[in-house]
Amino acid sequence: MQIDIINGPNLNLIGQREPSIYGNLTFDEVFAQWKSEFKLQLSLSQSNIEGEIVGLLQNSKADGIVLNAGAYTHTSIAIRDAISAIKIPVIEVHLSNVTARESFRHESFITPVCVGCVFGFGMESYRMALHYFLSKGSI
Amino acid sequence: MQIDIINGPNLNLIGQREPSIYGNLTFDEVFAQWKSEFKLQLSLSQSNIEGEIVGLLQNSKADGIVLNAGAYTHTSIAIRDAISAIKIPVIEVHLSNVTARESFRHESFITPVCVGCVFGFGMESYRMALHYFLSKGSI
Amino acid sequence: MQIDIINGPNLNLIGQREPSIYGNLTFDEVFAQWKSEFKLQLSLSQSNIEGEIVGLLQNSKADGIVLNAGAYTHTSIAIRDAISAIKIPVIEVHLSNVTARESFRHESFITPVCVGCVFGFGMESYRMALHYFLSKGSI
Amino acid sequence: MQIDIINGPNLNLIGQREPSIYGNLTFDEVFAQWKSEFKLQLSLSQSNIEGEIVGLLQNSKADGIVLNAGAYTHTSIAIRDAISAIKIPVIEVHLSNVTARESFRHESFITPVCVGCVFGFGMESYRMALHYFLSKGSI
Amino acid sequence: MQIDIINGPNLNLIGQREPSIYGNLTFDEVFAQWKSEFKLQLSLSQSNIEGEIVGLLQNSKADGIVLNAGAYTHTSIAIRDAISAIKIPVIEVHLSNVTARESFRHESFITPVCVGCVFGFGMESYRMALHYFLSKGSI
Amino acid sequence: MQIDIINGPNLNLIGQREPSIYGNLTFDEVFAQWKSEFKLQLSLSQSNIEGEIVGLLQNSKADGIVLNAGAYTHTSIAIRDAISAIKIPVIEVHLSNVTARESFRHESFITPVCVGCVFGFGMESYRMALHYFLSKGSI
Amino acid sequence: MQIDIINGPNLNLIGQREPSIYGNLTFDEVFAQWKSEFKLQLSLSQSNIEGEIVGLLQNSKADGIVLNAGAYTHTSIAIRDAISAIKIPVIEVHLSNVTARESFRHESFITPVCVGCVFGFGMESYRMALHYFLSKGSI
Amino acid sequence: MQIDIINGPNLNLIGQREPSIYGNLTFDEVFAQWKSEFKLQLSLSQSNIEGEIVGLLQNSKADGIVLNAGAYTHTSIAIRDAISAIKIPVIEVHLSNVTARESFRHESFITPVCVGCVFGFGMESYRMALHYFLSKGSI
Amino acid sequence: MQIDIINGPNLNLIGQREPSIYGNLTFDEVFAQWKSEFKLQLSLSQSNIEGEIVGLLQNSKADGIVLNAGAYTHTSIAIRDAISAIKIPVIEVHLSNVTARESFRHESFITPVCVGCVFGFGMESYRMALHYFLSKGSI
Amino acid sequence: MQIDIINGPNLNLIGQREPSIYGNLTFDEVFAQWKSEFKLQLSLSQSNIEGEIVGLLQNSKADGIVLNAGAYTHTSIAIRDAISAIKIPVIEVHLSNVTARESFRHESFITPVCVGCVFGFGMESYRMALHYFLSKGSI
Amino acid sequence: MQIDIINGPNLNLIGQREPSIYGNLTFDEVFAQWKSEFKLQLSLSQSNIEGEIVGLLQNSKADGIVLNAGAYTHTSIAIRDAISAIKIPVIEVHLSNVTARESFRHESFITPVCVGCVFGFGMESYRMALHYFLSKGSI
Amino acid sequence: MQIDIINGPNLNLIGQREPSIYGNLTFDEVFAQWKSEFKLQLSLSQSNIEGEIVGLLQNSKADGIVLNAGAYTHTSIAIRDAISAIKIPVIEVHLSNVTARESFRHESFITPVCVGCVFGFGMESYRMALHYFLSKGSI
Repeated sequence: MQIDIINGPNLNLIGQREPSIYGNLTFDEVFAQWKSEFKLQLSLSQSNIEGEIVGLLQNSKADGIVLNAGAYTHTSIAIRDAISAIKIPVIEVHLSNVTARESFRHESFITPVCVGCVFGFGMESYRMALHYFLSKGSI
Repeated sequence: MQIDIINGPNLNLIGQREPSIYGNLTFDEVFAQWKSEFKLQLSLSQSNIEGEIVGLLQNSKADGIVLNAGAYTHTSIAIRDAISAIKIPVIEVHLSNVTARESFRHESFITPVCVGCVFGFGMESYRMALHYFLSKGSI
Repeated sequence: MQIDIINGPNLNLIGQREPSIYGNLTFDEVFAQWKSEFKLQLSLSQSNIEGEIVGLLQNSKADGIVLNAGAYTHTSIAIRDAISAIKIPVIEVHLSNVTARESFRHESFITPVCVGCVFGFGMESYRMALHYFLSKGSI
Repeated sequence: MQIDIINGPNLNLIGQREPSIYGNLTFDEVFAQWKSEFKLQLSLSQSNIEGEIVGLLQNSKADGIVLNAGAYTHTSIAIRDAISAIKIPVIEVHLSNVTARESFRHESFITPVCVGCVFGFGMESYRMALHYFLSKGSI
Repeated sequence: MQIDIINGPNLNLIGQREPSIYGNLTFDEVFAQWKSEFKLQLSLSQSNIEGEIVGLLQNSKADGIVLNAGAYTHTSIAIRDAISAIKIPVIEVHLSNVTARESFRHESFITPVCVGCVFGFGMESYRMALHYFLSKGSI
Repeated sequence: MQIDIINGPNLNLIGQREPSIYGNLTFDEVFAQWKSEFKLQLSLSQSNIEGEIVGLLQNSKADGIVLNAGAYTHTSIAIRDAISAIKIPVIEVHLSNVTARESFRHESFITPVCVGCVFGFGMESYRMALHYFLSKGSI
Repeated sequence: MQIDIINGPNLNLIGQREPSIYGNLTFDEVFAQWKSEFKLQLSLSQSNIEGEIVGLLQNSKADGIVLNAGAYTHTSIAIRDAISAIKIPVIEVHLSNVTARESFRHESFITPVCVGCVFGFGMESYRMALHYFLSKGSI
Repeated sequence: MQIDIINGPNLNLIGQREPSIYGNLTFDEVFAQWKSEFKLQLSLSQSNIEGEIVGLLQNSKADGIVLNAGAYTHTSIAIRDAISAIKIPVIEVHLSNVTARESFRHESFITPVCVGCVFGFGMESYRMALHYFLSKGSI
Repeated sequence: MQIDIINGPNLNLIGQREPSIYGNLTFDEVFAQWKSEFKLQLSLSQSNIEGEIVGLLQNSKADGIVLNAGAYTHTSIAIRDAISAIKIPVIEVHLSNVTARESFRHESFITPVCVGCVFGFGMESYRMALHYFLSKGSI
Repeated sequence: MQIDIINGPNLNLIGQREPSIYGNLTFDEVFAQWKSEFKLQLSLSQSNIEGEIVGLLQNSKADGIVLNAGAYTHTSIAIRDAISAIKIPVIEVHLSNVTARESFRHESFITPVCVGCVFGFGMESYRMALHYFLSKGSI
Repeated sequence: MQIDIINGPNLNLIGQREPSIYGNLTFDEVFAQWKSEFKLQLSLSQSNIEGEIVGLLQNSKADGIVLNAGAYTHTSIAIRDAISAIKIPVIEVHLSNVTARESFRHESFITPVCVGCVFGFGMESYRMALHYFLSKGSI
Repeated sequence: MQIDIINGPNLNLIGQREPSIYGNLTFDEVFAQWKSEFKLQLSLSQSNIEGEIVGLLQNSKADGIVLNAGAYTHTSIAIRDAISAIKIPVIEVHLSNVTARESFRHESFITPVCVGCVFGFGMESYRMALHYFLSKGSI
């Protein structure tokens, strides 16, 4: 079972800045842990460019996608349309509890076309999404 | 580690009606499975009355709470205030992807004062929340 | 043919206060008249508590329900969800012409999931709803 | 006792189109039934033109009016003003449950100046209104 | 002269939690002080349940009511209707300056049907309301 | 100098109904007075139909128009477009102070394309508009 | 193949006024050109009255309709309902780019129930719509 | 009969600037004309300060007031309250057609408490208001 | 302990007009009563001019301020800024229940930067505020 | 005469997915048909990246552009600015009737700066735009 | 070259209060520095009264004005009108980044009629504006 | 001291088009002037792609950044997040007075996380920002 993890803008900074909030681990280091922990084929990609995320979604061959679209969550209809066009189930995740931040982060163009959404648990948000795919796959 | 699962209005009907959507299992039957699967002290309660849910939150002695406030999610400031007043971490869950339903289900009074939110995965939403508490407890 | 009449908050005061507006008859007295007038099995219940009205709807065994949810008409998604969950046809009634009162009484969460709505005719609103059930039953 | 039934735009199509929804009977055929059923003087008129409905209201000599203003319900202040100007009680009726349709059908300029409103019961909506006039007249 | 003090949801926690903000005194302890200080018959009740507060208002035999409806201030039309239905003057009080908190606490369904409103003075808000009843009674 | 006075829906009722508000004089009677008082060629027309008012404006040969569009003031872009298309100066008048009535009467589609507006003076509103044309003509 | 062209209010003025914008040709003259150019049965009608346009739509026997509803585009639910009720495909056209004009011309009640919309190309808008019908008919 | 004309902020510049729009006459010069033309006791005052206009209204001994509150028309509740408090009829005037200017000039706090409003006629707006007082006085 | 009472626009009319509502006493007369009743140094000032109220606040040397900003409550950010800039606690008072009046009186720029607010009790509103300062001072 | 056709995000999927809706032809295949059918120099380009579409517009040497900006239609001011900056006429096209889809697709940043707009006709939308350029060129 | 600096309400407090934020220098002290630094004729004035700022603008004889209207920025159309009426270029300045403060400070009536705006740089905001005038004068 | 100047979409066209508005100088030519005028290390970059501007900000090693994000100012939360994540002070600049243009240019996602903002002065806006960095550096 193949799962693609796709990260949006500014998420390449995780682990490099604000370690008191997000810890010292980069996504690559956490990703290595997940690869050994889960019985899943995992890939990881990141882009700051909205249209490249559209491309990553269109070209995916995975059985499931975990998507943290970052700031594009709130502004991109193009990413929404890409999710609708492909037939792969997508789970939306966020590190922080977005509803407790600025009001322009409360609206999401993406959630209605995803299977579901997990947010507010830091890096655990990704693991919870992987648990879901694992549990569905085992049924 | 003690976790309280609290369900709000109309969730007592799960398993009795609309089995094609929610399956044939009642909450009590699923709850029995979770008790054997997870290394957690689990309790389950349900009420149709907003003020009784306020009471369940105030009187909880648990280390964590999984709350599906149902329709009160969108109308109850009293439940929000109860969550703020107690010091126990609360995870909000929903069976369905609420953002893909009527617009009055898009707003939640409760999310900003919870740790995080999981929705859209049916009964799996609860299990993902339990995974989080288990994983935090084991750190 | 069994019809349940369910009244919401403050409707227990009818007949006791403001007789110049609503007459001297209590709901119990009017109800006795309806019982002798209509060829229907009739029951009457009232509650000030939103969650109890949810319960009355869930537990109903009637062929039709006449519901005056009072103030909860405008604030309760829980009652709406209960109406959607049960398979019994519900008619919404109000004594007054709610659209000619304060603007917060113009919105109803309940109307879209009811068969229809009758309002503005005082106690006659209930009788018109009973006429409808009678007329449907006779077809 | 004289009652005028006034129908607005597109209601002349009833019985001719979409019989699966509205039945095969035209308004004229249903009207003939009502004439024999009710002890009331009944007249029936229809117009697609907003200003002509204003005229029908101004010129009415009836003791009561049953008005289905159709689409003008949501856009016509002129019809509202005509209802206010005449001293005849008007009951607003609709075939469908307008609150479950598009949002621009949720607002009505007319309801606040009518006695009351009945909607969602198909052709029964008209009969329920006639029952009200009959019941008021017999008191 | 009889005055009823009615408290809404979560106000039973006062004195038990967050003593740095609200002090160490429970409502019962403060209430004992007021009873000796004021030449008034005083009663005190609390409920987390909206419909029970409606009942407390309906059943009151007092000459005046001091009501802190807590979170229901902003969501309950039922409590508003109960205040309108009874003929007893009601003063709305709040411990905190609600206008300096979240925007959903800025609207009150209750204020327009009360005599007046006192908020922002902690426990003093209640005493100021009692002063008003005392002063009116003495005129 | 030719001036056309054009009245919209329900204004044919003036003088027939609500004499305590608008006096006993019909428009025809007042119009006769104006004809003898003012050194102007005056014509008077009225219609309840929006499209006919469009036609009256299109076909006018006058040097100025006094228009009371009644309820269409607030709903008709068609009348606005007709005023824009013709080259004759139009003054908007109303009998009542529309800003002190319902909020849907506060917006006017017509005012921005008129020379100016006079309202709130009863029948005097028309006379003041005629004074303006007279005064402009004499310059 | 029969196509009806229906024009709304003020469009009878085209060719008579503002020739610098719309040219010197009236609709009748342009219509004559189209009749010789297109292999289509063409009819042309115009009305300033909303309800008459409803009637033109109801009574049409055409295979397709090209509708320029003018100002009623933005205010008429009645015309929308007529389009929905008939089974003939309707194309909405406008001479100007309505989105670059006043904001009240940006909303259209009619577009969602039409096949599509063409605007901003002057008289060419009509020809493009006719090309579509021709091209569909030839498939 | 005494009439006070009160002008608000920036109206002292009339006649000094933008003569192509407002002419070369200052208010004082026009005022002198009016004094000889009308059989009325006339006074003229102006202030740039909102609170001084409140004072001018409070201290007026006139039988009628013509008020051009200028920019305060759209922002001053204080002036509205002063008009309500005094018993003298006030007519609101403006030189320009305010509805054809920026949207923040479309709302007026003052109009609902005035007798009526005249705008869009330049200096003629004042004369039309004076005509009204004269005509009322002569009845 | 020094308390400044500051009144805003139109409050100088109290006692002179509408005695049936506000009584026959002027502020000066009531103020004399308060001076003998309360063990407080009291001063009283009033202005119709927004900027002068800003000055009164800036120049105050009191231990507390009771402010009735009248109409400026709803329009003045300048007064809000003055309250924020000084370090003296300010209590907002109003004679009437402002929430039961026009909607533009429901918003207050001032409340969030005051200690609290008392309204709806007529002249008693001031006395209740003075009681608060007295009670705080004695602690 | 040179015409550039520019397609935005996700339009590269046409012909590959959902053939029941959009047919089996890719844009390249349809484009080949157009090249032989129209006496026009045609070019075709596509990008998922907003900024690249800005570049395609800036660098165009064509006499006209047919632009389907896809999801960027509703979110991109940058593309709007590029259209404004170049002097080439642009026609906006869409495959579907966007007004009958989600509300966030109803607003377009681009339409006001285009010549006109054609939507709802599938691939025919492009051909109708090409007809317009051909017809203008031939005049 | 003469430049007038005009300050609005509460800006007289700068240097006296909150020195940790704004420093210990009063406007007069900073102004003395600017006078020696810049080759400009400089004047400085301040008022808490809206109408006086209108007067300062009307009476200015300068070649340019630097205006910090403080709180009146967001509420005063009168000041806007004064800026429009005079022919002197005005630059709007603010000490703080107003967009990062409360939402009612985000709107400015004044900016659209100024040359430009500088804010967020503390006292430097004024110097940057003076640099602009100097640089323009030297061209 | 190193300052990076970053320009967003369409700003590469400056100097090539609309010289009557922006002059004949390209950014490169003006930039050369600034390099010789200011004692600062200056770099200049431009991109039409939102995600590339995110990258330019993330990778900057400068002591300060002058950012003209062009159209992305109003739509990009991603750029805002990048500014928040880096620790370098950013000044927002615009050539034109954006508040005097279309309303969708009035909101900025970026301003609240910048030091300040300068707009409306053409190329001078950049120089004023550089003056600020120079002046801060010299303190």
